[in-house]
Amino acid sequence: MYYICPGLLFANLDIQLCSLLGITFVPKPDLLLINATLLVNPVDGCMQEDAYLAVADGAIVGIGAMADLPAQPEAEKIIEVAGNLVMPGLVNCHSHGAMTLFRGLADDLPLMTWLNEHIFPAEARLVDAEMVYWCSKLAAAEMIMGGTTTVADAYFYEHAAAKAFCEAGLRSVAAQGIIDFPAPGVPEPKQNIAVAADFLAAWQGKNSLLTPALFCHSPYTCGPDTMQRAKALAREAGSLFFIHLAETRDEIAQSKAQHRKTPVGLLHGLGLLDENTVCVHCVWLTEDDVRLLQETGAKVVTCPESNMKLGSGIAPLSELLAAGVQVGLGTDGCASNNDLDLFQEMASCARLHKVASREPTCLPASVLLDMAMGMGAEVLGLARQTGCLAVGLRADCVIIERRKPHLSPFYNPGTLVYAGRGSDVSTVLIDGRVVMQDRRFLAFDLAETLDEVRRLAKRVRAGE
Amino acid sequence: MYYICPGLLFANLDIQLCSLLGITFVPKPDLLLINATLLVNPVDGCMQEDAYLAVADGAIVGIGAMADLPAQPEAEKIIEVAGNLVMPGLVNCHSHGAMTLFRGLADDLPLMTWLNEHIFPAEARLVDAEMVYWCSKLAAAEMIMGGTTTVADAYFYEHAAAKAFCEAGLRSVAAQGIIDFPAPGVPEPKQNIAVAADFLAAWQGKNSLLTPALFCHSPYTCGPDTMQRAKALAREAGSLFFIHLAETRDEIAQSKAQHRKTPVGLLHGLGLLDENTVCVHCVWLTEDDVRLLQETGAKVVTCPESNMKLGSGIAPLSELLAAGVQVGLGTDGCASNNDLDLFQEMASCARLHKVASREPTCLPASVLLDMAMGMGAEVLGLARQTGCLAVGLRADCVIIERRKPHLSPFYNPGTLVYAGRGSDVSTVLIDGRVVMQDRRFLAFDLAETLDEVRRLAKRVRAGE
Repeated sequence: MYYICPGLLFANLDIQLCSLLGITFVPKPDLLLINATLLVNPVDGCMQEDAYLAVADGAIVGIGAMADLPAQPEAEKIIEVAGNLVMPGLVNCHSHGAMTLFRGLADDLPLMTWLNEHIFPAEARLVDAEMVYWCSKLAAAEMIMGGTTTVADAYFYEHAAAKAFCEAGLRSVAAQGIIDFPAPGVPEPKQNIAVAADFLAAWQGKNSLLTPALFCHSPYTCGPDTMQRAKALAREAGSLFFIHLAETRDEIAQSKAQHRKTPVGLLHGLGLLDENTVCVHCVWLTEDDVRLLQETGAKVVTCPESNMKLGSGIAPLSELLAAGVQVGLGTDGCASNNDLDLFQEMASCARLHKVASREPTCLPASVLLDMAMGMGAEVLGLARQTGCLAVGLRADCVIIERRKPHLSPFYNPGTLVYAGRGSDVSTVLIDGRVVMQDRRFLAFDLAETLDEVRRLAKRVRAGE
Repeated sequence: MYYICPGLLFANLDIQLCSLLGITFVPKPDLLLINATLLVNPVDGCMQEDAYLAVADGAIVGIGAMADLPAQPEAEKIIEVAGNLVMPGLVNCHSHGAMTLFRGLADDLPLMTWLNEHIFPAEARLVDAEMVYWCSKLAAAEMIMGGTTTVADAYFYEHAAAKAFCEAGLRSVAAQGIIDFPAPGVPEPKQNIAVAADFLAAWQGKNSLLTPALFCHSPYTCGPDTMQRAKALAREAGSLFFIHLAETRDEIAQSKAQHRKTPVGLLHGLGLLDENTVCVHCVWLTEDDVRLLQETGAKVVTCPESNMKLGSGIAPLSELLAAGVQVGLGTDGCASNNDLDLFQEMASCARLHKVASREPTCLPASVLLDMAMGMGAEVLGLARQTGCLAVGLRADCVIIERRKPHLSPFYNPGTLVYAGRGSDVSTVLIDGRVVMQDRRFLAFDLAETLDEVRRLAKRVRAGE
């Protein structure tokens, strides 16, 4: 038996003494990570050497120095970290998992050609619940193997994506798509809110790893009435409301022509901005837009690699962060990125903003780590569950194998941002479950998923 | 015995018949890659499925369809590629290998603080032949493990770097540094040309994998006389002349103030630009500069991740390529990148230029693959040795394991650019030698090098 208080782990203490001392009693840990270097606080770069991390019932129940452990610690399972780095799992704040099927299908094309001649036709022809299920499983595997333990996903047939994420053991916010056009699974646009309501009802409280939400595609594909009804539904259900916003200059021009407002101004005028609204992209913002986002507590997600590859532009991240807006990092879908690797997304984000501002001090590594961990969790309303290594939070953490040429030397956690990549993750815990160990993927039968996606990819090719 | 003509491999043909038919006789291959998907031409994206590649005496001696091989092909060693991708090894056109020691030492700082308070003092204190040897070995391991088979390196104590690259079996252009300040190994600047001449003399013709060259640091650290003497030495020896050029706006301003010319104009006026001059960075160019580079046949190397991280700016790559200037891709050193992964460099380069131009068609994947392969080899004067898969060239090639979530589906080689990373390389051949197989690094004792670099890193830390 172990008795654990924050930061310490004792063997064989008297239970009544513990109670008197205010020490919490917990059963023997399910899992103990030993001889770890813990990235306790990404923001200040603090690393704790020679440490342990104890997990019970899916939660972190102890963090402390190896010296405070008994010589022969007891646990259901012990993982020898051997001096490698243990850090919080990464939080991908925006993706369309099922779009892994369209990875690299139509690169380097003008935006409208890409959308109208390739992505939309392929979606119309191929997206069904089965496709979403298998391709979301592929996305889940890619994310887990890259150290992502939480994803905010947004697509159609989202119940199939939700099923895939739950089977993978990936923590997720799964958002059902809403759009004023015939969409996969919603052939009749008038039903889009009803389908979304059914999705929320079906998934609320169903699985502790999954939070259902809504994804209104954008102000240029959803009318004001649809957006307001969707937001009302989200408010009623206490759910997050995601929306693509201010992604391209064309969108700004169209919004001004049609509504005489910027996209952010439009949403604000419709009463849609609050702390449960997550605005994705926000590339083209005015000073007023930044102020409105800050005042309403709305969240922002930036997807730099997608914005770069599509030539959309560069989001005013420094201005948003300086104003106190919470910003998460997202990979976007594989049609425009083309991978789901948050390590590379951190590096791209930092480098892009340095070169755009001609200022190497812009967006230091600590800010990127925060965006991909703690602040990302806050954007998704999950900060009490994930995003840092602390007793009481769920055990979402990853082990980074540091003894590799490209991570040597390893002076500080900035090396994770500028030289790390998803493949450096050796072991992943989500909610205390070991879903990958020493690069062996354990969450589900990966070969089966790869085969199923290969079969679907043949259909994509046949239609080209 | 095998008798091989371009593209075909026959068993047991009569040698006189072969001679009559103009078929070249070669001994049994040393190595045969079977059941491969060959990336024959990165520029047109052409992939040849179900193919073999035969290697003898370090050269590619046969490429063809598996159907043309005998049922039981003979070779000293056969590698089953199992449908994975075989492509040319990548060419890193600019690096400072030994600076792996300073990876992540001082990120996110203003340029002058970074240089004057961190990098220069650390170099002054720590750079000696032993440091350059071990840290260049680390760089060689990182590059090989990331699919790079040729590097153009530039540093001081370059003989120690040359020794490291030769031991690693890495193809290299090793350039001895020249600078008008006391430098590692050259405490008396007046000796800088003499030291460089000794380096050229010592290494010319010594090892078929290594081409010695000169690296004049920059026009702001070398006077006109030094640059001219260095270029004269390079011309005499038939060597490449590398120089950092037009990297920052400050450099342009300084050049104009001091010489009334742009850096490119200055070099041209001094008679330093020709087809054996390799201008590294070229971020800030005028139209006249581009024309001068084109007219003289000078080469350019772009290092986008370094230029981004240091906030230097964005090179006019589209203009250079449109003018017909040959442009290679370089990682630069680890103090400013912070890794040596050319896959990620390709992605960063493509994405950066798309977002800077707001044009997703800018720098398509095929151009990046060309810059990192064939055109890179041309920049280094090595196009008759490496950079593509063709009979007669040296066998520098890598196997990419495609059956991974982040590379699935794999519709075309663009996926290498936008989703590939160094860690996807499973096996590497350089000059026909297998230096890594199935991620097992075979070139030298990697653990020893990691230990030696760790020892040096402790000295770096102690001095901070």
